[in-house]
Amino acid sequence: MSDKKTIIVIGGSAAGPKAAAKARRLDQKARIVILQKGEYFSMASCGYPYYVGGVFDNRNMLISTPTGVVRDPQFYLNAKGIEAINNTDVTAIDRKKKKVSYRNTETGEKGEMPYDKLIITTGSLPRIPPLEGTDLDGITTLQSMHDADYLRKIRDEKKITRAVVVGGGLIGVETCEALRLAGIDITLVELFPQIITFLDWELAKLVEGHMKMQGVDVVTKNGVAAFLGENGKLTGIKLQNGTELPCELAVIAIGVSPNSGLAKDAGIEVNNFGGIVVNEYMQTSDPDIYAAGDCVAVRNLITGELVHAPFGDLANLQGRVAGENAACGNSVIFEGTVKTGICKVFEFSAGATGLSETFARIMNIDNIETVINASPDKPGFMGGKLLVTKLVAEKGTGKVLGAQCVGPGDVSRQIAQWAMAVKAGFTVEDMINLDLPYAPPFSLAIDHTIATAHIMQNKMKGRMKGISSMGVKKKLDSGEKPFILDARGPDEYEEMRLGIGEHLIPLGALRKRLNELPDDKSREVICFCKISLRGYEAALVLEANGYTDVKVMEGGIMAWPYPREK
Amino acid sequence: MSDKKTIIVIGGSAAGPKAAAKARRLDQKARIVILQKGEYFSMASCGYPYYVGGVFDNRNMLISTPTGVVRDPQFYLNAKGIEAINNTDVTAIDRKKKKVSYRNTETGEKGEMPYDKLIITTGSLPRIPPLEGTDLDGITTLQSMHDADYLRKIRDEKKITRAVVVGGGLIGVETCEALRLAGIDITLVELFPQIITFLDWELAKLVEGHMKMQGVDVVTKNGVAAFLGENGKLTGIKLQNGTELPCELAVIAIGVSPNSGLAKDAGIEVNNFGGIVVNEYMQTSDPDIYAAGDCVAVRNLITGELVHAPFGDLANLQGRVAGENAACGNSVIFEGTVKTGICKVFEFSAGATGLSETFARIMNIDNIETVINASPDKPGFMGGKLLVTKLVAEKGTGKVLGAQCVGPGDVSRQIAQWAMAVKAGFTVEDMINLDLPYAPPFSLAIDHTIATAHIMQNKMKGRMKGISSMGVKKKLDSGEKPFILDARGPDEYEEMRLGIGEHLIPLGALRKRLNELPDDKSREVICFCKISLRGYEAALVLEANGYTDVKVMEGGIMAWPYPREK
Repeated sequence: MSDKKTIIVIGGSAAGPKAAAKARRLDQKARIVILQKGEYFSMASCGYPYYVGGVFDNRNMLISTPTGVVRDPQFYLNAKGIEAINNTDVTAIDRKKKKVSYRNTETGEKGEMPYDKLIITTGSLPRIPPLEGTDLDGITTLQSMHDADYLRKIRDEKKITRAVVVGGGLIGVETCEALRLAGIDITLVELFPQIITFLDWELAKLVEGHMKMQGVDVVTKNGVAAFLGENGKLTGIKLQNGTELPCELAVIAIGVSPNSGLAKDAGIEVNNFGGIVVNEYMQTSDPDIYAAGDCVAVRNLITGELVHAPFGDLANLQGRVAGENAACGNSVIFEGTVKTGICKVFEFSAGATGLSETFARIMNIDNIETVINASPDKPGFMGGKLLVTKLVAEKGTGKVLGAQCVGPGDVSRQIAQWAMAVKAGFTVEDMINLDLPYAPPFSLAIDHTIATAHIMQNKMKGRMKGISSMGVKKKLDSGEKPFILDARGPDEYEEMRLGIGEHLIPLGALRKRLNELPDDKSREVICFCKISLRGYEAALVLEANGYTDVKVMEGGIMAWPYPREK
Repeated sequence: MSDKKTIIVIGGSAAGPKAAAKARRLDQKARIVILQKGEYFSMASCGYPYYVGGVFDNRNMLISTPTGVVRDPQFYLNAKGIEAINNTDVTAIDRKKKKVSYRNTETGEKGEMPYDKLIITTGSLPRIPPLEGTDLDGITTLQSMHDADYLRKIRDEKKITRAVVVGGGLIGVETCEALRLAGIDITLVELFPQIITFLDWELAKLVEGHMKMQGVDVVTKNGVAAFLGENGKLTGIKLQNGTELPCELAVIAIGVSPNSGLAKDAGIEVNNFGGIVVNEYMQTSDPDIYAAGDCVAVRNLITGELVHAPFGDLANLQGRVAGENAACGNSVIFEGTVKTGICKVFEFSAGATGLSETFARIMNIDNIETVINASPDKPGFMGGKLLVTKLVAEKGTGKVLGAQCVGPGDVSRQIAQWAMAVKAGFTVEDMINLDLPYAPPFSLAIDHTIATAHIMQNKMKGRMKGISSMGVKKKLDSGEKPFILDARGPDEYEEMRLGIGEHLIPLGALRKRLNELPDDKSREVICFCKISLRGYEAALVLEANGYTDVKVMEGGIMAWPYPREK
């Protein structure tokens, strides 16, 4: 037995099975056991909203291999040589004796199992607001197969007509889409002033606008005060501002916390937000115990702080590292995260990597420059769709700190490119002449990422004085009277316009109509167009003609987060 | 006049207008002139195949701004303050007197124009095979608006039923798709053993297989011997092997050469393949003359050699640099290319960046390791589509030298990621834990790029002994008898199989059926499955059971470039 190591993995969702599989590949002799509290293994939990929404109908696809084999204990035993034991709750870890105690959740039977190496992948627990009534029938989360089955049934039965989604994070917005596709009237309630907090406010508002167009009522800066019920059934929600929203269903999606109680009880180090503390080998404070996935604290590679990063991709990567190190001794590392994320919201996608401006300022990183770029993802003749990107870079050095992108276009490639740039430590200058894959079905000749870098370069070199939509709004609200120039054509103006007192002078006519500009050449002029490329060219014309305070409203109308006149 | 510089741009396609526009933005006073030989400006020439194929019907979208304004001389004058003069052929550059001579191609009128700075963006010329009959009616290229109009008319008229496309490069395969969509029977003739030479042979064969499934007859290792005609009209093509292909249309797409005669005649340095030699400022051997786009020689950033890189994205980026330096003095640089490219071929995409194995070996870079990975781009329940990637890395260091990807999946993001990795100088280890945007609509939890790096890591660490499909075929053809193990399930085997003498033992049954393996544990065993993940796990089981020469056929059935039994 001495050469046959026992590796126990606690938890069977993402990180656990990955760790077990990797350990098996590297050690064909070890006894490898997965103890899973629930019924299923290796659930594609990120896929729940798509099952609920009817993107596919076979729920077993969530727990199957690509060839359609359900990943049950039999599969693990035969294909992987892994003992996968379900309905088994690990109740304690005895680190001195190196054994775990468990209880079968169906039979109540208890037992113990010795380990040489232990891997904790207990995941996260959904946060539930500390309010009355959260146990009413009709209130759920979307964190388990059971939850997915429950919501899918509601979709299929078509009885429920009104629902509230509490929380506008990734799962919240994905749930909105799923239920809206089922024809249910949805109100999304978010305590913060915006949804999807990895985005800065003005980009989040563009997504909110899209959700509203899709029929979701988005309520921000308002929390749930109480869940209202009759006869044990949810009948409505009372908001903090007093509004009552009648509904028969509420999905709580206000985030998750590391499920680290078991580790903490065993004396393993856990940090202030409950994340199990691990080193770069995914090793806990006990050298024989590793941890991975949503239960751990992860290093933010930009800020250096420990963060909770409950993302399915990171769980898999961490599981792979924990599994290898548990099997072979510490040999591979997981460095940390730059917090890259993406989600689909109806026809929009929203993604981010690295630091947002909001998060940078919270971290007191104020030495930053930002820029917004709006453009199609590919040529108009190929059906190009809009992308709006906000880039955050370090002033002076131009180092890329983060980027966000929203819109109906190919956000995925954009965020992948920026994530690679952040990882590489690239500056804006490094992005100027990138050699990216170009053909009309895939991108513009100058890819949106590169164009974003070009605009940032213009701004950093002082060639373009940018102003954000929020900056313009603030000026107007405070009574300032900048001269606002819309450089588009009359047809475009008729079709869509801001209505903030702008003057329409098409770029092509500007050189001949300079007399319509203010006599006082020191007066502030703010130029824009649909995406502010013509706005930028107009600004250059004005500057060449002596205007000394000319700004470009970044992203133009396409990035305007407020209501428009038309 | 002394403060008003004249910048002349020769050529009005991609690089030229970009250079002119950038120069204008930085110098509002200069006289900026574009002299264009043809009628149109700023044609989206990469879009021609999509116009021909009917993806869109309004040809003016190819020469319009995103808001639909045709980029004609009036547009350039009014919106950009640029004199754009068409139908004007520059016949000579007098570098001593700093002036150009030109001739109006319609009136024959001649003239001269002095310059302070000159930017040559004369593009490329299609290569035409030195054969009889290339002037027959029915033979064309797809390099100009005129060509696009000609082919689109053929599509719309529906008279022509048989066509030959000569050359299987990007334009060749795109043209095949365009004409095939028009219902025309297509034969693609390629002199090399494969199409799309930025791919290695085995990936190119997968694309060829897809084209054949779409009804294109792909003929490789065979060139055109003669164009056959009657009464001045094309009637067929005779191949070098004697075959005659009747057809009424032939599209020649055997590549392009730098259009550098004008520069060469003026004594500007031109290299061995005709590319205008420029420094990193895009400055020619004459300090007052810049050049950009398809007419220049570009530094390959990996090999250091000068190459021809006629890509629309690079033309734009180079034009931007040339325009800025012509306007402001040398201040910005264009570093070079890693030769990133992509194209759509029916439902497939094919892309590459950096070095292919073939190209590396041509350059005597033999210290390389390669690996092939096949997987869906996203989960099956989201309709994931296949990607097949080949990665080329430096042995020892693991430095990423290049990657290619083909398949119906999201190739664009894959190649973008690898292009960033090459640019960053990343090693395989740097790719192992990338923090990329993951959600089921966009990728697998472990993105295909990362999984490719994982497999390469396994190979480099000696954990997986990979063998290419070509290696297996070679063994079989030479009479070797490795034991070949297909680790899939019986259903899968019934549906599709190689038929190369493989033994079917599903991975899940392997541990119990080891007795079916050869008694001689030193015998060579080659494992595979659909994508060779189960094949890899099977190999590990065999090695743990004493087999000493176990290999995994990389990419499995999905990357098999030869005909299958089923």
